[in-house]
Amino acid sequence: MKKPLLMTPGPTQVHEDVRQAMAKNITNPDLDQDFFEYYKETCNKLKKIFKTENEVLILSGEGILGLEAACASLIEPGDRVLCIENGIFGRGFKDFAEIYGAEVVCFEGDPRKAIDVKELKEFLDKDNDFKLATLVYCETPSGITNPVDEICPLLKEYNILSIVDSVSAIGGEPIEVDKWQMDIVLCGSQKCISAAPGLTFLSISEEAWNIMKNRKAPIASFYCNLALWENWYEEKWFPYTQSISDIYGLDCAVDRILKGDNYIERHRKNGEAVRKAITKAGLELYPLSGFSNTVTTMIVPEETTFEEINNHMLKEHNIMIAGAFDYLKDKVIRIGHMGENCYEEKLYITLKALDETFKTLGVEMKGSLQKHFVDEID
Amino acid sequence: MKKPLLMTPGPTQVHEDVRQAMAKNITNPDLDQDFFEYYKETCNKLKKIFKTENEVLILSGEGILGLEAACASLIEPGDRVLCIENGIFGRGFKDFAEIYGAEVVCFEGDPRKAIDVKELKEFLDKDNDFKLATLVYCETPSGITNPVDEICPLLKEYNILSIVDSVSAIGGEPIEVDKWQMDIVLCGSQKCISAAPGLTFLSISEEAWNIMKNRKAPIASFYCNLALWENWYEEKWFPYTQSISDIYGLDCAVDRILKGDNYIERHRKNGEAVRKAITKAGLELYPLSGFSNTVTTMIVPEETTFEEINNHMLKEHNIMIAGAFDYLKDKVIRIGHMGENCYEEKLYITLKALDETFKTLGVEMKGSLQKHFVDEID
Amino acid sequence: MKKPLLMTPGPTQVHEDVRQAMAKNITNPDLDQDFFEYYKETCNKLKKIFKTENEVLILSGEGILGLEAACASLIEPGDRVLCIENGIFGRGFKDFAEIYGAEVVCFEGDPRKAIDVKELKEFLDKDNDFKLATLVYCETPSGITNPVDEICPLLKEYNILSIVDSVSAIGGEPIEVDKWQMDIVLCGSQKCISAAPGLTFLSISEEAWNIMKNRKAPIASFYCNLALWENWYEEKWFPYTQSISDIYGLDCAVDRILKGDNYIERHRKNGEAVRKAITKAGLELYPLSGFSNTVTTMIVPEETTFEEINNHMLKEHNIMIAGAFDYLKDKVIRIGHMGENCYEEKLYITLKALDETFKTLGVEMKGSLQKHFVDEID
Amino acid sequence: MKKPLLMTPGPTQVHEDVRQAMAKNITNPDLDQDFFEYYKETCNKLKKIFKTENEVLILSGEGILGLEAACASLIEPGDRVLCIENGIFGRGFKDFAEIYGAEVVCFEGDPRKAIDVKELKEFLDKDNDFKLATLVYCETPSGITNPVDEICPLLKEYNILSIVDSVSAIGGEPIEVDKWQMDIVLCGSQKCISAAPGLTFLSISEEAWNIMKNRKAPIASFYCNLALWENWYEEKWFPYTQSISDIYGLDCAVDRILKGDNYIERHRKNGEAVRKAITKAGLELYPLSGFSNTVTTMIVPEETTFEEINNHMLKEHNIMIAGAFDYLKDKVIRIGHMGENCYEEKLYITLKALDETFKTLGVEMKGSLQKHFVDEID
Repeated sequence: MKKPLLMTPGPTQVHEDVRQAMAKNITNPDLDQDFFEYYKETCNKLKKIFKTENEVLILSGEGILGLEAACASLIEPGDRVLCIENGIFGRGFKDFAEIYGAEVVCFEGDPRKAIDVKELKEFLDKDNDFKLATLVYCETPSGITNPVDEICPLLKEYNILSIVDSVSAIGGEPIEVDKWQMDIVLCGSQKCISAAPGLTFLSISEEAWNIMKNRKAPIASFYCNLALWENWYEEKWFPYTQSISDIYGLDCAVDRILKGDNYIERHRKNGEAVRKAITKAGLELYPLSGFSNTVTTMIVPEETTFEEINNHMLKEHNIMIAGAFDYLKDKVIRIGHMGENCYEEKLYITLKALDETFKTLGVEMKGSLQKHFVDEID
Repeated sequence: MKKPLLMTPGPTQVHEDVRQAMAKNITNPDLDQDFFEYYKETCNKLKKIFKTENEVLILSGEGILGLEAACASLIEPGDRVLCIENGIFGRGFKDFAEIYGAEVVCFEGDPRKAIDVKELKEFLDKDNDFKLATLVYCETPSGITNPVDEICPLLKEYNILSIVDSVSAIGGEPIEVDKWQMDIVLCGSQKCISAAPGLTFLSISEEAWNIMKNRKAPIASFYCNLALWENWYEEKWFPYTQSISDIYGLDCAVDRILKGDNYIERHRKNGEAVRKAITKAGLELYPLSGFSNTVTTMIVPEETTFEEINNHMLKEHNIMIAGAFDYLKDKVIRIGHMGENCYEEKLYITLKALDETFKTLGVEMKGSLQKHFVDEID
Repeated sequence: MKKPLLMTPGPTQVHEDVRQAMAKNITNPDLDQDFFEYYKETCNKLKKIFKTENEVLILSGEGILGLEAACASLIEPGDRVLCIENGIFGRGFKDFAEIYGAEVVCFEGDPRKAIDVKELKEFLDKDNDFKLATLVYCETPSGITNPVDEICPLLKEYNILSIVDSVSAIGGEPIEVDKWQMDIVLCGSQKCISAAPGLTFLSISEEAWNIMKNRKAPIASFYCNLALWENWYEEKWFPYTQSISDIYGLDCAVDRILKGDNYIERHRKNGEAVRKAITKAGLELYPLSGFSNTVTTMIVPEETTFEEINNHMLKEHNIMIAGAFDYLKDKVIRIGHMGENCYEEKLYITLKALDETFKTLGVEMKGSLQKHFVDEID
Repeated sequence: MKKPLLMTPGPTQVHEDVRQAMAKNITNPDLDQDFFEYYKETCNKLKKIFKTENEVLILSGEGILGLEAACASLIEPGDRVLCIENGIFGRGFKDFAEIYGAEVVCFEGDPRKAIDVKELKEFLDKDNDFKLATLVYCETPSGITNPVDEICPLLKEYNILSIVDSVSAIGGEPIEVDKWQMDIVLCGSQKCISAAPGLTFLSISEEAWNIMKNRKAPIASFYCNLALWENWYEEKWFPYTQSISDIYGLDCAVDRILKGDNYIERHRKNGEAVRKAITKAGLELYPLSGFSNTVTTMIVPEETTFEEINNHMLKEHNIMIAGAFDYLKDKVIRIGHMGENCYEEKLYITLKALDETFKTLGVEMKGSLQKHFVDEID
C-alpha cells in the first residue's frame, strides 16, 4: 500500500515512536501483576489530559465502542434521553440510545452553527425530565465544535447526566471534565491523540457509576458493560484480555502530548490560519460558527467536485484529504489538523498542493492558500 | 515491566516480525481504497487456516467480542439455544445467549472429559428443537478439546446451527469449517495465531447470514452487529474505523503460519511429549480424555501450591506459566504450547525450570520432566 | 539525548525505513553465500547513482577511509601527485598523499570560488607530470562545488588519474563517473545518501585497478588496501567481516533515492531558493561562485556570533545547523539541505526559526528569510 | 535472504533490542555535545567488561581495524616485535607488524595446544629485546584459548608491551586487563558482545600512549592512527564522524551483558557440556589443550565432509555452523557458542540437528550429542 500524507480528520499519522512502542515485546496482561499498574498509569496520564479526577478506563475497540458502552451502561428501557444534535454524529447518538430502550427527544441545532446555549436553555425550561443527555464536542463531519463548557454545567442544573462524544476534540481542543461537570466523556486513540486506531477511553463520574450500580434492569451487553470494570484494579481482573500492544502505543502517544508543547495553542493557531487562508482566498467554510481547531470543512468550489480534488491531491501530491458522508457527501472538503498532523510545515505543503490542485481544476481564487496561511500563521 | 518467557495459554509470545509489522506506517483505513483490498486479503488467508469458503470477518476487539457478536446477531428473544458444555468457557456461553433473550438448555459433559458424542446424540433424540447450539473447541482452563468434527455435523442433522468458540484451538488443532459444517467459528489473535491481543475473527456460513437477514427483532447492538458488515466490500465501508496496525500484525502472523512448517503436527508432537513427560514423572493431568495439544493442564502436586510454583518459576527462571480460575482456581497448573511457544527448545527450558521448581518445593517425581520430554519428543 | 532536527551538512536525518532496515535480523556475511549477492546488488544500485560501469565497493568505515584507501592503494613512494584545492577538504588530501610517500604539488584556487578550469589548464600546460590528481567535488565547509565535469576530462588529456572526494555531492549534485572519466570517486553514507554514518563506497576505474596490480611497492596497509578486493565476488571472500546491518540500511537508502523523485532537481530547486532568500534578506553568502546545492554557507552577520545563533536555534527551535572549522571557524553558518533534509517543508521551518533567531539577536535583515524562500521556491 | 540460526563463531545472532537500538533516530555525532558524553559512557561500560582503568576507544570498522591501528600506532620501522603464535590469527599478526616496518621474530606454539608459558619463558630468557609482542587470546579457527593471564605479566618482566587480539574472547572468557598488565587489548562488536559487525574497540595502557607520543617516525596512517584520539574528549572532536547507530547498538549489547547473568560462567558451562558431548559420542575435538568456551572445533568425521554436514544443517535444519580456512580448511567443524548463541536451548537444538545430520551421513557415534549435552549441562 502507498502511504500518503494523511491530512484527514483521523486516523492521523502515528509518530514512529508510538508505532515502535506497539512493537515492544509483550507480557501476559491477564496474569502479569505489573501490567495492572501499567494500565493504571496510562489511565492516570489520560486523566491529566481530560483534566479530571474521575476514573478513566481504556476499552479494546474503536471510539464507537466507548459511545455504545456509555449508552448500554447508563440507559434502562424507558429512560428519557435528550439528544442534543447539530450534525451527523450528534444525530447518530439517538440510534444508540434507542437500541438500549431509551425514549429519545432531540434538540436540533442549526447544522452550520454551534449549538445555541440560550435556545437550549429555553428548551430545557419547558422539558427537562431527562435521565441523561448525549452530545458531541466536535462534529467531525461538519467541523463544528459545540460549547460543551456551557452545555454540561447547564444540564447539571436540571440534574441531567451528560455523555459527551469528544473523540475528535480531546488532544486538540480545551477540555475540563471536572470543571465542566461532564459525566461520561469518551475519546478514541486515532484522532488528536495520534495513536493507532483500536482503543477508546472514557472518564466516568461518580454519579455515572452510581447510576450503573443502582440499575433495575441488567446491562444488556457484556462487551459494552462498564459496570464489570468497577473493581478491576482491586481484583486485578479485566473483563477480557487487554490490547497490550495498542496500550503501549497509546501510553507513548499520551507521553508525547504531556511532555510536548502547548498542543491546544498549536491547534488553535494552525486551525485559525487555515480558516483565514480559505476565507482570504474567497473560498467558503462550511461552518458559520463553532469553528473546529482540529478539522476544517470547506464547501467544494462550484468549478469542480470533491472526487476530482481528492484524486488530484492523491495522485499528484500523495496527500490524502477527506470529503464527508450522509447529507454532506460531495458537498465539502475536510482537512484534518489533528495531533501529529497539526504542524505548520504539514499544512504548508498541504495548502501548496491544494493551490496547485485548484488551479489545475479551474477554481478561481484570490491569491494562494499557502501564502495566506504563511502570512496568517505568524 | 519485566518480560518473562510467556508459557501461558495465551497471550503467547509475539514474534518480532509480527510486532514490527504493527509498527509500520499507516494509511487511513476508512478512506484508502487499498486498505479494503488488504483487509480482504488477510481474511482470505484466514479462510485457508479455517479451511472454509465462508466469509471471514475481522472485528476490532478481544475474542469475546466475536463470541458476543455471534450471539447478538443470531439470537432473537425467545429462541431456544442449546449450550453444550464441559467447562468454564462452555458454560459461560449460556450468559451471552441469555443477554440476547435466548431460552437456554444445557447439555453438561464431564468436566474432565471431552464431550461424549453418543450421549449428546441421545440427548438430541429427545430434544432437538433448537435454533442453534454453542460449544467450545478447546476448553482453555481445563485443557480439553471437544470433538467438534463430530458434534457439528451431528447438529446439522437436527437442523441446529453451531457457534463454535475456537479461540485457543485454531492455529494449533486441526480445523475444517466447511467439512465439519460449522456455522460461526470464532477465534482471537492472541492464542495459537500468536499476534497481539486486540482482534477477533470469525467465519460465517451462508445459513448464518440468512438467519441474520431474516430476523424479526432488530439486533440489539451496534458494535456486536454482524449484519452491518454484509456489504462492506461492495460498498467500501466499515461499521467503524478498523484497527489497521493490529491487522498488519495479524496478517504477518498468519503469513508465518501459512508459510511455515506443519504447525498442526508440531502442536501434536510437542503437546504429546509434554503430557507423556508429566505422566512418566508420576504427576497427574487434569483431563481424562480430549487432551489439548495447545495447553496442558496438570493437577497441582499436593506438596505445594500453585502460588508457590508460579512465584518460583517467575523469580528464579523468569518463565510465566498459568493457573486457572473459577472451580479450577488453585487446583491446576497450565502450560501453554501455542503458536510461537510451541517449540521444543522453549518447552525444554520450561520443563527444566519446572523440574528445579518442583525439587525445591519438595514435590516427589519419578525422574525429570525435562528428560522425559527429551526422550519422548524424538 | 535530545534529537534536534538536523539541518547540518551531514549526518542528515536518517529515514525511519532506513533505520528499521538496519534493525533487520542478520545472517553471517562471511559464510552466507546469499550475502555476497546482496552486497553485489547494493553495489549495482550505487553504480546507477554514480552513473558508471566501473566496479563499486563498499568499505566498513567513515568516508575518510575511502579517501585514504584510494591514496594508499594508488600512490607509491615518490609518485608526483597534483592536489587541486580551494578549501579545507581539498588541502587535507595533501596530507593523505604524503603519508603514502607522494611528492605533492598544489594547485590553489580561490577559497570563495569554484576551481577555475582555464587557470588549471594553464597550470597543467606547464607541469603535467603527475601520476594522479586529488580533488573535491563539494567543499562541504565552504559550500562550493567544483566543475569536476570539466576537470576530470581535462586531467585525462594529460594522462593524469583522478581521485575525487564526492562525499557531500553524490545524491544531491549531478554525477557522471564514466562520461566525466573519473578514476576513483568516493562517497560516504551519511551525507546526501542519508544512511547512518559508518560506510564509505567508491567506484574504481579499470585504469586504477591496473595501477594497483602493477605496483612495485606493496600497499602499506591492510584495512586501506583496495587491491585485496580484486576477486571478492569470484572467491566469495571479503578482507574482513562486512557491516551487514549498515549495508541493509544503505541498500534501503539507495532504494529510496532510485525509486523516488528527481532528487537532483529537488536539491537544485531548494538550494537555489535558500541562497536567493539569504541574498534578498541582505545577508552574505560565503561562496562567490560554485554554489553548492547540498549545503549553503553564509557569513555570520556582524551583529552576532555563530555560537549565539547556534545556541538559540537549538534551545528555542530544536534545530541544529552548523558552523565550520579551521580558517572558517566562527566566520560562517552552514545549513545542510542534503538528502532527507532537502525538502521544502524542512527548510521552511528552519528559515522561519532563523528569522526569529536573527531578530532576537539584533541582526538587520530585509524582510524574512522564510517568506523570501516561499516566494522563490515556486 | 533466509535467516538461519547462526551457530557460527561470529557474527552471532544480534538480539532484537540491540538491533532496535540501531534503529533509533540519530543526532549529529560531530556537533551534538551530548554525543561525546554518550560515547564516553559506552566506553566506560566497556571498561567494566575489560576490567580496566585504561582508556577505551571505539573505532568505526571491523575488528581487524583495531589490530592494524595498534600495530600502526605503536610500531616504528626497525622495531623488533615478537609474534607469539599457535594458529592462523596469531601468525597473521606478523604481516601487520611488517607492514609498519617491524622486524618480526616468531615464537611458534603447537597449533593444537595452548601456548606453553614455560617454553615461552625459556625463549625469552634467550631473546627478549622486543619493543612489543603480539598474541591472540582465543584462536577462533582452532578453538584454542591462550593463557594471556600468564603471558602478559611474563612479557612485562622483560619490559615488552603486549597487543592482544581478544576479539572472540571478551564477553565469553574471563579478562582482567589491568591485573594481567595488558597494553593494548582489542575486541570486535560481532563476537561474544553480540552486536552487529562494524565496530572495534580497544583499551590502551598509559605506557602504550607514551610510546605513541614519543615516536620518532610519524604514524603512517590516518584511519589507523590512535594518537589522533588523545584529546578527543577534552576537545570534543573525533578524527572522523562516528558510527552513531552502530554505537547505539553496541551500548545496548553491553548493557545486556552488564545487567544480565554471569556470562563467563554461562560460557564455561555450555562450552564444557558441548565438548563433553562430542567426546562422549566418540568424536574428536581439534584442540588438545586450551579449550575455548566460545567456540568448539571438532575434526570432521572421516565418513563425511564439512560441505556435506554444512549443507545438510542448512537445508534440513536452517542452522548455520562453520568450517575453517587456511590449513584447517575442510578439516574441522566449528560451533560457536558466543554471546547470544551461548544458551542451552540453542545448543540443544543445534546438537539435535547435528545428531540427525551425522546419522544421515553415516557417521558412527556413541549415543546422541544432544542427549550427552543434556546429561552434562546439569
